[in-house]
Amino acid sequence: MPMPEARFRLAPRMAEIQPFYVMELLGRAKALEAAGRDIVHMEVGEPDFPTPEPVLEAVREALEHGRMFYTPALGMPELRAAIAGFYRDRYGVEVAPERILVTPGASGALQLATAVLLAPGEALLMADPGYPCNRHFARLVEARAVGVPVGPESGYQLTAAQVEAHWTAETAAVLVASPSNPTGTVVERAEMAAIAAAVHRRGGRLLVDEIYNGLVYEGDVTTALAITDEAFVINSFSKYFGMTGWRIGWLVAPPAYVRDLEKLAQNLFISAPTPSQYAALAALRPETLAIAEERRLAFRERRDYLLPALRELGFRIPVTPQGAFYLYADISAFSDDSHRFAMDLLERAGVAVTPGLDFGANAPGRHVRFAYTTSLPRLEEAVARIRAYLEGP
Amino acid sequence: MPMPEARFRLAPRMAEIQPFYVMELLGRAKALEAAGRDIVHMEVGEPDFPTPEPVLEAVREALEHGRMFYTPALGMPELRAAIAGFYRDRYGVEVAPERILVTPGASGALQLATAVLLAPGEALLMADPGYPCNRHFARLVEARAVGVPVGPESGYQLTAAQVEAHWTAETAAVLVASPSNPTGTVVERAEMAAIAAAVHRRGGRLLVDEIYNGLVYEGDVTTALAITDEAFVINSFSKYFGMTGWRIGWLVAPPAYVRDLEKLAQNLFISAPTPSQYAALAALRPETLAIAEERRLAFRERRDYLLPALRELGFRIPVTPQGAFYLYADISAFSDDSHRFAMDLLERAGVAVTPGLDFGANAPGRHVRFAYTTSLPRLEEAVARIRAYLEGP
Repeated sequence: MPMPEARFRLAPRMAEIQPFYVMELLGRAKALEAAGRDIVHMEVGEPDFPTPEPVLEAVREALEHGRMFYTPALGMPELRAAIAGFYRDRYGVEVAPERILVTPGASGALQLATAVLLAPGEALLMADPGYPCNRHFARLVEARAVGVPVGPESGYQLTAAQVEAHWTAETAAVLVASPSNPTGTVVERAEMAAIAAAVHRRGGRLLVDEIYNGLVYEGDVTTALAITDEAFVINSFSKYFGMTGWRIGWLVAPPAYVRDLEKLAQNLFISAPTPSQYAALAALRPETLAIAEERRLAFRERRDYLLPALRELGFRIPVTPQGAFYLYADISAFSDDSHRFAMDLLERAGVAVTPGLDFGANAPGRHVRFAYTTSLPRLEEAVARIRAYLEGP
Repeated sequence: MPMPEARFRLAPRMAEIQPFYVMELLGRAKALEAAGRDIVHMEVGEPDFPTPEPVLEAVREALEHGRMFYTPALGMPELRAAIAGFYRDRYGVEVAPERILVTPGASGALQLATAVLLAPGEALLMADPGYPCNRHFARLVEARAVGVPVGPESGYQLTAAQVEAHWTAETAAVLVASPSNPTGTVVERAEMAAIAAAVHRRGGRLLVDEIYNGLVYEGDVTTALAITDEAFVINSFSKYFGMTGWRIGWLVAPPAYVRDLEKLAQNLFISAPTPSQYAALAALRPETLAIAEERRLAFRERRDYLLPALRELGFRIPVTPQGAFYLYADISAFSDDSHRFAMDLLERAGVAVTPGLDFGANAPGRHVRFAYTTSLPRLEEAVARIRAYLEGP
């Protein structure tokens, strides 16, 4: 039978869902490497550390019985209990295991929270610059992400005053990331409390992305859950535990939402990957936490080297980032076209960084993100190469 | 600071997203088991077989290096190539690896395909009864699932004539599952070609769920990809390979859609779980395929026992299901309230089955689904118990 031609049809939302622009640069970096060039990778948002050995060992044990079946949609009960224990031990906060949902990465948690909360046309306020996927979780369900430009004056974070100033009748929720990707900055406890109060007073909901919260290098380390039980708190085993590929994270939700989140999780995911749930369980054991802590200190050492070194080269990093593994640098001294700057730095200096375009619409041409997800000697090599590049031929 | 009370707000879509009703029954079954009762589980939509040993061995090897990082959003290139090889070897169909996306389960594939295709208000036609999550993937993105009642006269499958009869200006796409959950029936090649032609002629798109396609017990076994390159074909390692908990599947898309699907996958999932991708790679090796084939024969043996046994007891199963591991039975001879029938069967006979309500709005009260995901001796035990139950005290 002759088959009629099929028509290309695309949902309108796809026009507003952006790719990761850095992938183009990454492709070029790999091509250069294939041609024999040495590239220092500072564009990658994942730790260079492998999965901790106690985690691998626990997965090996779990594989022995081969019973890798579906788990309950909310996650294995023992893992939910272990996450509750993590909050108790680390932050002195009681979180009932019933409020904890195990998700396929923080991505799954963000998707559940946005889909449950946001009606079509409603707005989700968030800082710009910010993690690029966040706005697309809103767009997917026909809601709108509203980026609020933030800068050094507020440590590149939303403030309660900004939440109030940008609130409209359509605003349904506010998303805060602390520490932030791409800026590494933290929302202080008092400001977080003021944001939560402002959001709740207006009848909205607060989402707090804490996926980098294990990686804080100074100051008061807390969780939004120490401030309010009414926030949706997103976390992950990817960054602090170095387990990106396992795609496992969690969501803490107010009790009234758990049933709705559960039915959505049943339908969208069925359950988080079972081997990854065994891995996550082992990640929370004391011996793995000790490894994670060593790695945190290694990241801090890298930050403490890289931050002054970049500043000395003329990159403007006006606020010292307290966490994550990123430095978000103003490159005004060198260029107003960060994409071109990054491509040039890659081609001529063999250093890969991420241009600002991936993080929003707030002066992306004047910023690049450095990830210190490579060893100290490699960071030193990168700084030497950048110095030579900036000094010119 | 006193915290203002937070308001409960929920996106309207949540009112139309249904939980898995069988979970209530499953909860009761577990309570009975905890109290010492023996329950035969025929409600579970996952194979009872563990992960095949060559898969476990491959994952153990992959764990040796511990480098479980993100993969490209489309999946590890070697896995995409291996899936292309699977189509070549099994079906004699050439599918370019560039058209294959590795996803977090078939769930991820269904979500990507529906989100890319369906605009708000547009309709996705599908058979009723059908897999319950399908309609929610449409609802999530503010589109509508339109269930078309199907019955024994069409083998519980959509026909091209029905597609034409139910097409409206809002129809954007049609979803066919072959073999079907819950009915186990297959769309014959000529009908699939007619459906594809009808859909394409009207400017729509065809989605074909082939997650049970490895488990066909008779007749012509093919794939929609042998008929058209314009369909979106969803598949999974869950059912045929017995790897439910790994949450790994794939989507074959028309080339024109790959870029959009990729950017959506980057944002929604980042990538499928890396250990599961190594597992999937090993699933496609000849030694694992041989195990899957043995299991297929075991499922066929179970079907060949259970189908006549249930018919003899008075369950109406008018069409012999060619695949999957389900029998969808009309219980009119016993009840018009399948929920009550299933709860009663559980309490009094210790046999768990799934009431029709989970599969749509087409006479759910008159149907239950039997899953033959337990051993032959246990199926015999179930049949004996059901016989005793039906004969009464």
